[in-house]
Amino acid sequence: MKIKVFIGTSLDGFIARSDGDIGWLERFADGDAVKAYEEFTSTVDAFVIGRGTFEKVLRFPSWPYEKHVFVLSTSLTKVPEKAWPEVTVLSMEPGALLHYLAGKGYSVIYVDGGKVIQEFLKADLIDEMIISRVPVLIGSGIPLFGHLDNDLHFRHVRTHTSSNGLVRSHYERIR
Amino acid sequence: MKIKVFIGTSLDGFIARSDGDIGWLERFADGDAVKAYEEFTSTVDAFVIGRGTFEKVLRFPSWPYEKHVFVLSTSLTKVPEKAWPEVTVLSMEPGALLHYLAGKGYSVIYVDGGKVIQEFLKADLIDEMIISRVPVLIGSGIPLFGHLDNDLHFRHVRTHTSSNGLVRSHYERIR
Repeated sequence: MKIKVFIGTSLDGFIARSDGDIGWLERFADGDAVKAYEEFTSTVDAFVIGRGTFEKVLRFPSWPYEKHVFVLSTSLTKVPEKAWPEVTVLSMEPGALLHYLAGKGYSVIYVDGGKVIQEFLKADLIDEMIISRVPVLIGSGIPLFGHLDNDLHFRHVRTHTSSNGLVRSHYERIR
Repeated sequence: MKIKVFIGTSLDGFIARSDGDIGWLERFADGDAVKAYEEFTSTVDAFVIGRGTFEKVLRFPSWPYEKHVFVLSTSLTKVPEKAWPEVTVLSMEPGALLHYLAGKGYSVIYVDGGKVIQEFLKADLIDEMIISRVPVLIGSGIPLFGHLDNDLHFRHVRTHTSSNGLVRSHYERIR
């Protein structure tokens, strides 16, 4: 099983402003970035997101996920009609969730959203990270990374730079 | 006048552990990284650091700076003999310091140390940043970036990747 992250951040490591705004980040989503995202998502079997990301995505004009989505939440009790039947809400720890997904035949999982990524990193369950940094300091907001109990070492696989200033680096966990 | 930063960070944006340890970072200081640092420092006239960096550097086996060093501190009253006469201690705000240095004929300044870099960024006085990211998450420590009153946009100039996984990106402030 491979657990992957593909995410954009500011130069100072934020994935959104405190109010959720990502306009400063979306400005850099040119054709090249969209193509990289689509190539990446074509390799995954399922998405795992948290309630915060789920509620944000429900307000998007169209549903962005083309594979089944598992929402980790202890408070959600039902799936809004708009998201049905592509969404399953589960209340599980990261390790238990992966065990569950493996049992269902999933093998390549995309983990998205700040809080969920931090939980998976803390449990050392992330195998690959593709991080796209845009050349802006926003000074505060929702951080990509959080506290860890141990250092996590990665292998740098490659870095791609775009003419708009986005720097996208691909890392694999060294175990 | 040009004010520049050249600094290494973890993938999660820390320049040292909370106790000041940078062993995890120094592991990536290969010949290539040392050469890039020397090429960079050959272009600067003077260094500006804070008391924390100064006290750390005083414990190094040899004095690392080859140009005059200005230490920003409100508490230091004298310069240790080891650092004399290459060091001047000043108690000034970033803007006043730059005015003072311009009057002394300095035109390219290297600003180093987490707190001082954050103060200069907050005052929007940094023109160039060269950031070397090593492929390790350390989870906590002394952050490179801090709170800002406004977004700061930069132009990505170039990114160099090393075989040991270090990714060094060069940015210029867009005003």
